[in-house]
Amino acid sequence: MAVPAPGGVWPELVVARRELRPDDVAVRVLWCGVCHSDLHAVEAMTAGAPPLVRAGAPPLVPGHEFVGEVAEVGDAVTGLRPGDLVGVGNIVDSCGECAACRDDQEQFCAGFPTLTYDSASPGAYAGEYVVRESFAYLLPDGLDPARAAPLMCAGATVFEPLRRWNAGPGQLVGVVGLGGLGHLAVKFAKALGARVAVFTTSPGKVAAARELGADEVILSADVDAQAGRFDLSTDVDARAGRFDLSADVDARAGRFDLSADVDARAGRFDLILDTAPAKHDPSPYLRALRMDGTLCMLGIPDRYDVDAMALLHGYKRLTASGSAGRRRTREMLSFAAAHGITADVEKIPARQVGEAFARLARNDVRWRFVLDLTDLG
Amino acid sequence: MAVPAPGGVWPELVVARRELRPDDVAVRVLWCGVCHSDLHAVEAMTAGAPPLVRAGAPPLVPGHEFVGEVAEVGDAVTGLRPGDLVGVGNIVDSCGECAACRDDQEQFCAGFPTLTYDSASPGAYAGEYVVRESFAYLLPDGLDPARAAPLMCAGATVFEPLRRWNAGPGQLVGVVGLGGLGHLAVKFAKALGARVAVFTTSPGKVAAARELGADEVILSADVDAQAGRFDLSTDVDARAGRFDLSADVDARAGRFDLSADVDARAGRFDLILDTAPAKHDPSPYLRALRMDGTLCMLGIPDRYDVDAMALLHGYKRLTASGSAGRRRTREMLSFAAAHGITADVEKIPARQVGEAFARLARNDVRWRFVLDLTDLG
Repeated sequence: MAVPAPGGVWPELVVARRELRPDDVAVRVLWCGVCHSDLHAVEAMTAGAPPLVRAGAPPLVPGHEFVGEVAEVGDAVTGLRPGDLVGVGNIVDSCGECAACRDDQEQFCAGFPTLTYDSASPGAYAGEYVVRESFAYLLPDGLDPARAAPLMCAGATVFEPLRRWNAGPGQLVGVVGLGGLGHLAVKFAKALGARVAVFTTSPGKVAAARELGADEVILSADVDAQAGRFDLSTDVDARAGRFDLSADVDARAGRFDLSADVDARAGRFDLILDTAPAKHDPSPYLRALRMDGTLCMLGIPDRYDVDAMALLHGYKRLTASGSAGRRRTREMLSFAAAHGITADVEKIPARQVGEAFARLARNDVRWRFVLDLTDLG
Repeated sequence: MAVPAPGGVWPELVVARRELRPDDVAVRVLWCGVCHSDLHAVEAMTAGAPPLVRAGAPPLVPGHEFVGEVAEVGDAVTGLRPGDLVGVGNIVDSCGECAACRDDQEQFCAGFPTLTYDSASPGAYAGEYVVRESFAYLLPDGLDPARAAPLMCAGATVFEPLRRWNAGPGQLVGVVGLGGLGHLAVKFAKALGARVAVFTTSPGKVAAARELGADEVILSADVDAQAGRFDLSTDVDARAGRFDLSADVDARAGRFDLSADVDARAGRFDLILDTAPAKHDPSPYLRALRMDGTLCMLGIPDRYDVDAMALLHGYKRLTASGSAGRRRTREMLSFAAAHGITADVEKIPARQVGEAFARLARNDVRWRFVLDLTDLG
């Protein structure tokens, strides 16, 4: 399923995968999650200034969190056999030699890791995908394949910083935004033993956050809800002249005051994971941290623009994370199986991907679309 | 010495200090450093939107890093006697009860610490200052009073994050900007046992950085040198329409390319202290950090605006710091005395403060002005 012209139907293409190398496996794709970064990639492409698309390149085929069945294995493959269920995330190769790779943090590969798709390499909105054995993860028993697909990107992306910053008993973890990443962050953080508070701007999500296990829900104005109205893309900065989220919030401070709302609960959080995909001011969340606390950004706009005093006052730390290395991904899958954690998904036929994108852009999904790829090809 | 109208001569005022409380000491001011934040305060005041000045308030008297002689002590003072030489920094009180104060980190007092001056409370460009005993630090033997004055703000401000982030043997520390803070950061980091690299944009400072002990000097384009031309203030953002440092740099990338320059040396730094007072893009310094490295901002503009990928790729951490608590300030003074560390200063009569400010705004000082206050009053 390739990205269409704006507003159009997604064309179905026949794409060639590489011949199996000795350490490759061919995977028949069953379920593939629809990630917000797919939306970014598509919008960037249709906006004409796409970071993922090169001039003269073939159409973009998204898809980077999927579960499938091994169909064929290369001669040197030892750990997987045809018929195995595997998951694949958004990293499919890395240099293997730099300090990060030697430390099992392939997501920080000095040569930049190979992502699951770009304009030259079609992703997993497809009937089949070919990947090195070492980046295909055997799915533990007991994980439903459709619900496990979003673990491979959204799950790994939230589990990595929770473990890196030692979320656990005695800690208070904040989760900003309740969506594909956010709902899994709540599940993982709770299972790790932390207390969890969800910051959401949607009154309609408060009950859902509680049901997911949140100990506390902070309704923090509708900054995020606005995000559903903005057409999100990677070039928010370039359009700053058209709308300015920060200014917008300030101007309406009389109606809802995000800062005051958050500040009133300030200084309690050990770790906050900010999963909101739209560009916004992270400063209120910095202020909500206790001394030495960490705000980890998971939605990746071009820039982060924060209030200097919010960062200064108490050695607050701003960091960012995305995806995870192989060791952590394996750990995440084992932990998910042990604690019965999978994504809450809406299954949708692959040919309705356009509808999924439109609804995702409106923030209308609980909490992750997974495409059924079995009817393709 | 009170702040004049723009371009004018600094008026001399007679200001009333509070009557000595039981735990106060009155200090005859000898030497007071001219800090960049004084310049910010003055410019903010003359720009008409001053954070430190309230409506109807008396004229602003700056000055928050000084050495003086105890002239008189309150009834309950036990640790200081008339004739003692003391140093006072930019914090003169705090609540004493919050978590930060109980942890000797008064700079992060939840109620915000009391600063040494604001519009309601004159600073130390004056013949006398009254301060609680517990925020006046007995000057260790062997420290020259004039050269020790800048330790009280500039010294404490760089020593605190060096110790907090464990600068020492085996670490590579970067110091961005060579001025009042930067030159003391080099001295302290070297004395702590770290290897030190200075990032400077001034070819004329390369030799000086070596003389101060830097193991390496990275001439990183003239972003900082431009800062000397901009009239620095706290409202750089407000004037973004007039000049945009980032855009400016990009547009001239053919002539000097800060990013490329820094990136070529990327991934080596454990800690970088950024002392550049003008607003600039910290992203190249994030990229220069090794995995898990920390960029600590010490020049405090309104906002920090950083490239998301620079932060993401390797769990780089952005933090900020200013000043230090009492315990660390005492430690800094002991360490300075033990290692013979003081500031390199230019002494200037108090009545020439206007000249000092003008030269500081041009980045023309090696490395700190100290005002001689003994001829006042």
